Amino acid sequence: MTIVSLDAMGGDAGPDVTIPAAEIALEANPDLKLILVGDQELLTKRIADLKPALAERVSIRHASQKVEMDESPSSALRGKKDSSMRVAINLVKEGEAGACVSAGNTGALMATARFVLKTLPGIDRPAICTSIPSVEGHNHILDLGANVDSSSDHLFQFAVMGSVLASAVDNIESPRVALLNIGEEEIKGNDQVKRAASILAASELNYIGYIEGDQVFKGGSDVVVCDGFVGNVMLKTTEGVAKMISHFMKEAFMRGPLSKLAAVIAMPVLKSFRKRIDPRRYNGASLLGLRGIVVKSHGGADAFSFANAIKIATLEVSKSVPERIHSELETLLTRREAV
Amino acid sequence: MTIVSLDAMGGDAGPDVTIPAAEIALEANPDLKLILVGDQELLTKRIADLKPALAERVSIRHASQKVEMDESPSSALRGKKDSSMRVAINLVKEGEAGACVSAGNTGALMATARFVLKTLPGIDRPAICTSIPSVEGHNHILDLGANVDSSSDHLFQFAVMGSVLASAVDNIESPRVALLNIGEEEIKGNDQVKRAASILAASELNYIGYIEGDQVFKGGSDVVVCDGFVGNVMLKTTEGVAKMISHFMKEAFMRGPLSKLAAVIAMPVLKSFRKRIDPRRYNGASLLGLRGIVVKSHGGADAFSFANAIKIATLEVSKSVPERIHSELETLLTRREAV
Repeated sequence: MTIVSLDAMGGDAGPDVTIPAAEIALEANPDLKLILVGDQELLTKRIADLKPALAERVSIRHASQKVEMDESPSSALRGKKDSSMRVAINLVKEGEAGACVSAGNTGALMATARFVLKTLPGIDRPAICTSIPSVEGHNHILDLGANVDSSSDHLFQFAVMGSVLASAVDNIESPRVALLNIGEEEIKGNDQVKRAASILAASELNYIGYIEGDQVFKGGSDVVVCDGFVGNVMLKTTEGVAKMISHFMKEAFMRGPLSKLAAVIAMPVLKSFRKRIDPRRYNGASLLGLRGIVVKSHGGADAFSFANAIKIATLEVSKSVPERIHSELETLLTRREAV
Repeated sequence: MTIVSLDAMGGDAGPDVTIPAAEIALEANPDLKLILVGDQELLTKRIADLKPALAERVSIRHASQKVEMDESPSSALRGKKDSSMRVAINLVKEGEAGACVSAGNTGALMATARFVLKTLPGIDRPAICTSIPSVEGHNHILDLGANVDSSSDHLFQFAVMGSVLASAVDNIESPRVALLNIGEEEIKGNDQVKRAASILAASELNYIGYIEGDQVFKGGSDVVVCDGFVGNVMLKTTEGVAKMISHFMKEAFMRGPLSKLAAVIAMPVLKSFRKRIDPRRYNGASLLGLRGIVVKSHGGADAFSFANAIKIATLEVSKSVPERIHSELETLLTRREAV
C-alpha cells in the first residue's frame, strides 16, 4: 500500500478539484491510500458520495488554515503552522504518508517542504523538476525556478537528481543526461555550464553533452539540466508558444463559413492532436533533494491533471526516489574524490 | 537611395539564396541599391539574368575568401581578411554601404563586426536582437546570445537598444519595454534583473515591468530584455516547440484514410495558419550597439527569408538606428547622473 497525503485545500479550486482527483487516482490504483488534509467538516461532506470501495482507502486529517495562492513563503511559514499544506507535509516527515501532493503556491510549498523535511546530505538546495514533451517522448527538466545563479556543483546535483527521477518514473536503466547550453556566443556558454560539463563528463552518469533549446523538443535525451532562471523561462515559453499556436489555429478555422466547415470535418483529427500535446498529461512537478517526496500540481489544474500529479508521487514512493538520490550522490562524490 | 552590402557567399547555400533574395529585395524597394560581395567571376555570371532595371542597381565587390559556417570567430578574424563577410562589413565602415547583411556564422559575424566597426560609446558589448511573434503582434527580444552573465547595466543598455530598434522598425513612438523574469522563486528573479528593474523604472524609457516567459507570446509589450543565455534558450525553445507541434499535427492528419481526407479539405485553412507562424517572416537579427548596421540572416534561410533580413537592414538605415541608440543612451545617462 502506498499512502499519499493531499493538500486538499490548495490550488485555485481547492476541494472542487482535489476530491474528484482523489477519486480518479483511487480508481486507477487499488494499492493507493489517500489522506485528505484540510477542513474536516467540509471534506467529510465532500467524500460522502464516494463509492464504499474507494471511501475505505480515504482518511481525513484536519487543518484549520489554508495558504493563499499569492501568500509569501515567509508568511506561510511563520503564520500558517496549521495550514493544509504544512500538515500534509508533516505527515510525510512523520512517516504517516510516503509522499505529499499540493497545488498550493510554489514559493510557499518549497519553503515549507524545505523547512519541515530538510534537504538530503550533499544537496545544497532542492530543485523543481517536471517533464515536457518532445517528438520522441519527453524530457525531465530541472531546475525550474527554485535556484537562480546556479553554480557548476548545483548543476551537477540537478543532474544526479534528474537522472534518478527519470529512471524511477520512466523505468530507464541509465537516463541520458544533457546540459542546456547555447551555441551562439563567441565562446559558447557561460563558465558555470562549462565547468559543470567537465564534472559531468568525468562522472559515471550517462552524460551525453550539451543540448540547445530547439533540440530539447526533438528527443535524444531524458534529462535536461539548467539553472532555474533558464529552466523557468524554457517551461513558460513552451506553454506560451503552444497557447499562441492553438490560438492562431482556432482563428484560422473560424475565419469564414468554409473554414468552419473544414473545422467540423477535421475535428476528430484536431482532437487527437490536442490530446497529444495536452499539458494536463504533464502536470506534476517534483521537489527534489528533500528528505521526503513532495509533488507540486499546477494551481489551475483540473481533476484529471491533479490525478496525474498523484500518480507521479506514487511512482516516486515505489522507487524510493529520495533514498536513491542520496545513495547515488554519495557514490558519485566518493568516486570523484577518489580520482 | 539606400545602399546595402550583401555577404553573397555566406549561409548554407551562398549565392543560390543571396542572388534570388537580392532580386526580391530590389523589386520590392525601388530606392535600394545592393553591393554583392564575393567571388567576382561567379557573381557576375549569376546576375547576368537579372532584369536591366534591377541590374543597374547592383554592383559587385570581389572578395577572395569565404568564412565557413563552422569556422571559429578567431580563425575568421585572423585568417580571412579578404572574406566576403569581412569585405561587406568594411563597406559599412568606409561609408560605401549603409548596412550589411550576412547569413554567415553568428560568432564570426559578431567578432568581425565588432572588430571592424567598434562599439558605440556607452555600450560595453553589442547585442543580438530579433522579433518573435505574439498573439497581438511581435516582440523584439535581446540579447540572444552575444552576452552571457549580463549585469544590470548591460540589461539597461539592451533596453535602450531594443527600444530604438522597435521604434525604428515598427514605427512606434514609445515602445513598451519589459524585463524577462521568473515568478517561481521564493524571492523572485536574480540580483542582476532586480537591479536592472530599478534602473529602468527610474529611466525615461517606457518600462512596463517584469514579464514571464508565457506572457511574451500573449502581447502587451514591444521589447523584451534578458541575458543572452536566457534569450537564446527562449528563441530556440520557440523554434523547437513550433516544429514539434507541426510534427504532431502532420502525424495526426496522416494517420489514416479519413484523416488524410480531412487534411485535404482543411488544407487552405492549414496553409493560412502556417503562413501566420512562418518563421521566414521573422528572419533577420540585428547586431546592435555597433557604429554601423549589421543584420544577420539565418544560415539556412531561403530567398524570401533572406530578403526579409535585407528589408530590416534598409529600415534601420532609414531610421539611423546606431545614431539614435547613441543619442538616446547619452540623454538617458546624463539624466541618470543628474538625478
